[in-house]
Amino acid sequence: MTTATAPHKSETHPTPKAYGDLASLVRESGVLQSIGGILSWDQETMMPPEGVDHRSTQLSLLARLAHQTAVSPRVRDLLAACEADGPFMASGSAEAANVREMRRDFDKLSKLPESHVAEFAALTAKAQHAWIGARSKSCFADFEPWLRKIVQLSRDRAQLLGIPAGGEPWDALADSYEPDCTAAKVEAVFHPLRKRLASFIAEIAAAPKRPSNRFNEHALPIEAQERFVRMVVTAIGFDFTRGRLDTSTHPFCGGSHCDDTRLTTRYSETCVNDALGSSMHEAGHGMYEQGLLRSEIGLPSGTAISLAVHESQSRLWENQVGRSRFFWTWCAPKLAECFGAAGTGFGVEELYGAANVVEPGFIRVDADEATYNLHVMVRFEIERLLISGALDTKDLPGEWNRRYKEYLGLTVPDDRRGCLQDVHWSMGAIGYFPTYTLGTLYSAQFFDAARAAIPGLEAGLAHGEFAPLKAWLNREIHAHGRRYGSEELCRRVTGKGLSFEPYLAYLEGKLRPLYGI
Amino acid sequence: MTTATAPHKSETHPTPKAYGDLASLVRESGVLQSIGGILSWDQETMMPPEGVDHRSTQLSLLARLAHQTAVSPRVRDLLAACEADGPFMASGSAEAANVREMRRDFDKLSKLPESHVAEFAALTAKAQHAWIGARSKSCFADFEPWLRKIVQLSRDRAQLLGIPAGGEPWDALADSYEPDCTAAKVEAVFHPLRKRLASFIAEIAAAPKRPSNRFNEHALPIEAQERFVRMVVTAIGFDFTRGRLDTSTHPFCGGSHCDDTRLTTRYSETCVNDALGSSMHEAGHGMYEQGLLRSEIGLPSGTAISLAVHESQSRLWENQVGRSRFFWTWCAPKLAECFGAAGTGFGVEELYGAANVVEPGFIRVDADEATYNLHVMVRFEIERLLISGALDTKDLPGEWNRRYKEYLGLTVPDDRRGCLQDVHWSMGAIGYFPTYTLGTLYSAQFFDAARAAIPGLEAGLAHGEFAPLKAWLNREIHAHGRRYGSEELCRRVTGKGLSFEPYLAYLEGKLRPLYGI
Repeated sequence: MTTATAPHKSETHPTPKAYGDLASLVRESGVLQSIGGILSWDQETMMPPEGVDHRSTQLSLLARLAHQTAVSPRVRDLLAACEADGPFMASGSAEAANVREMRRDFDKLSKLPESHVAEFAALTAKAQHAWIGARSKSCFADFEPWLRKIVQLSRDRAQLLGIPAGGEPWDALADSYEPDCTAAKVEAVFHPLRKRLASFIAEIAAAPKRPSNRFNEHALPIEAQERFVRMVVTAIGFDFTRGRLDTSTHPFCGGSHCDDTRLTTRYSETCVNDALGSSMHEAGHGMYEQGLLRSEIGLPSGTAISLAVHESQSRLWENQVGRSRFFWTWCAPKLAECFGAAGTGFGVEELYGAANVVEPGFIRVDADEATYNLHVMVRFEIERLLISGALDTKDLPGEWNRRYKEYLGLTVPDDRRGCLQDVHWSMGAIGYFPTYTLGTLYSAQFFDAARAAIPGLEAGLAHGEFAPLKAWLNREIHAHGRRYGSEELCRRVTGKGLSFEPYLAYLEGKLRPLYGI
Repeated sequence: MTTATAPHKSETHPTPKAYGDLASLVRESGVLQSIGGILSWDQETMMPPEGVDHRSTQLSLLARLAHQTAVSPRVRDLLAACEADGPFMASGSAEAANVREMRRDFDKLSKLPESHVAEFAALTAKAQHAWIGARSKSCFADFEPWLRKIVQLSRDRAQLLGIPAGGEPWDALADSYEPDCTAAKVEAVFHPLRKRLASFIAEIAAAPKRPSNRFNEHALPIEAQERFVRMVVTAIGFDFTRGRLDTSTHPFCGGSHCDDTRLTTRYSETCVNDALGSSMHEAGHGMYEQGLLRSEIGLPSGTAISLAVHESQSRLWENQVGRSRFFWTWCAPKLAECFGAAGTGFGVEELYGAANVVEPGFIRVDADEATYNLHVMVRFEIERLLISGALDTKDLPGEWNRRYKEYLGLTVPDDRRGCLQDVHWSMGAIGYFPTYTLGTLYSAQFFDAARAAIPGLEAGLAHGEFAPLKAWLNREIHAHGRRYGSEELCRRVTGKGLSFEPYLAYLEGKLRPLYGI
């Protein structure tokens, strides 16, 4: 309503209004995605088996509605209105950074028709279910028709998204997980890294001594393992008033919000380190989610940068912390508290050694730090071939097993311990795997920076003082959301770009003394 | 594409096309509601406590989108197109019955503005959380501000929906749970029923003998109770490949689909009959949901008729089956199988008697069959006063306690065992409670009809043959969806309208011998 005394022009600047409306719409799309987060978590942990068809319908509808909102004409117009305001965009504000990232998302999503998005969501919800069944029967043939459809839809998706100049279809897919990632960039890191790792692993294989594996073969009741793992995850800083820990076929971190972050793990009767490692790993992811700014959730400023940076957080807690002598100094007495007599008889040095046994194995998530990246490289190379069309899905097990023999010296005994072990491809996540190694490299760089920034960090860990590290990660990494890209954040935090040297220095610094090499 | 040889007119009749499009839109709204079903279940069973604010945002958005779809101009036009086709509507087909019910839903929902729907969903998601906290502290004052808002919004809702001629605001709310239900109709049943029950309960109180309560005070480990309850629920016919059973503050049946139906119960150390009764009750609801036709889910033809008919299914399994001598003949030997030595030493007659001890108590869901309906009457009378404005929410505990003294002769010791015991009002479900008694009356009528239709039904129950009863309920009740109204279905199945005489005959026929009166 205008009155005679009202000012001629609105006192409200037009851009803040447009920005507010834009933010509301983007948040609404985020709420729909967050609902999908709960339904996906539920599917892996709680849903009765026959519920899968309707779940697929639900997830497909949510994906379609979230997409509709994200690419609506209203979002397009509001984005343009914000961008037209030069001073606003040049302000260096968090809002301007959000508009920049919203533009990135809008342009990318606008290339995908709604029908493709709905079809992809419906297919992958069912395919994950098929994967669980095929994996439990160790029968790739049961999963192959689903993977074939996923690869075909992913190729379509790559074409729709557009292949970068001089790039390949895989690049278009990877960009969704790691912005600006390309196969060529990955290869430039992986190729020399593989050589360095191979020769180091060979040195270890021929080493004059090796840590005892006794603790890794020490049976402990699963109920007590659950209590133990929950105690550790709480101690390192995961907030259970804002999260959960359950079991699933494949450990993951899901949920829907910084106040509702859900971890899963899995238990082995004979090795508590499996559940401990995967739980600390997922808790690292979970603490990133819990560390996002509540007020920014649903906006780029309240969203994790990339999967590589996400993985840096999980690997840091799993490895730099969880496989350190400092951690086991704190943890050793806890074993007796949780397991009673069965938790005694292992000293700090033996436990530290057991956490660092290097032994090529079949399962990526249970791998030691030296061989872990070889698992990732196999997957990267294979998915690149699948997407380029050079490898037919029918030939996947043979190709997988051939590379495991070549890279890890292992004869894969069955598909469950081979190409059916990971959930990712069934989720349609092609282009995702390399972020595990990129994140592993970042984790070493970030931990070096934390050690330099926090006096007495490691001595503190030995006393169970995990809070300073978490607070540093909250401040230096989590609180920024997507304000900086991965490489830019790495430079800000560590003073350097991505490199595998800090990781190799960390690895060799730890393993050479343990193996007497 | 039209070619020279194409027929001049489409061979497809216009109504089937309009009906198909209408059904798709109605199903889409149903899918959104079904997602809300999972989120609500998750909130009560799994969600970390701090997740409540975001959950409220999610549920509010889903409610708004489901509403938008259900009352969209496209639905309006398609409904009109179907209704304009006289022969289609007069066909007596399932499709025509669906259009009739879709019209009912559309007209009702169209009266509610989107903002009201979103606000109601957001408020009740938070209020349920507040109720759990208030109940655990037994502090009504913590919940009162939430209830005040809910009553206010419910009054607004009643005005928006429109109060039937000669009716009252409560009627407008009740119609959502039990179509065409009014307070006057309820009162016409409750008033004489209360008199009959009161005198029968007085006879029981003065009876010369009473069954032993020993089994109801017999401590059994909760883990074994869970196994036992799951065994019984499986045996009576709940399909765990299409459902779950968990624990929650207040037992309920939720989920999202006939293939994803979720029950909850709660356990007491000292009385397995509490968990058994509530589990069989919720399983009765669950078998109704599982008995809906898969192909019709999301349409009126794949939706339960009303809450009273829903309740007839839960009460039938809880009482007519679960409190029968036949059931305990089958169940008695199972106790030793599940509880070992702790499950022995109780004969069939003692167990049957324990399941039928009449003892006025504070908790509705644990009440015996004779006093149960008095609990319902208290709630009906109070919510009617709250909605009319005759009772302020601040005065609720006093009014509640006064009526418990009058109707049940009990002095309510605290709000937890008083007006905070039920979840319903926190969910905004005002107008719901009377369906518990109406359903109880239907359950006796339906069970009489089942007994007449299935030769040897009860002898079969004594051998664990529950399948014939479930199949009869599937066929006579579940498979019809909303094709018939409650009263009409009752007449079709039993040959008579709603009456409390079959219920009283059943109750007296069972309890008089047990109490020697």
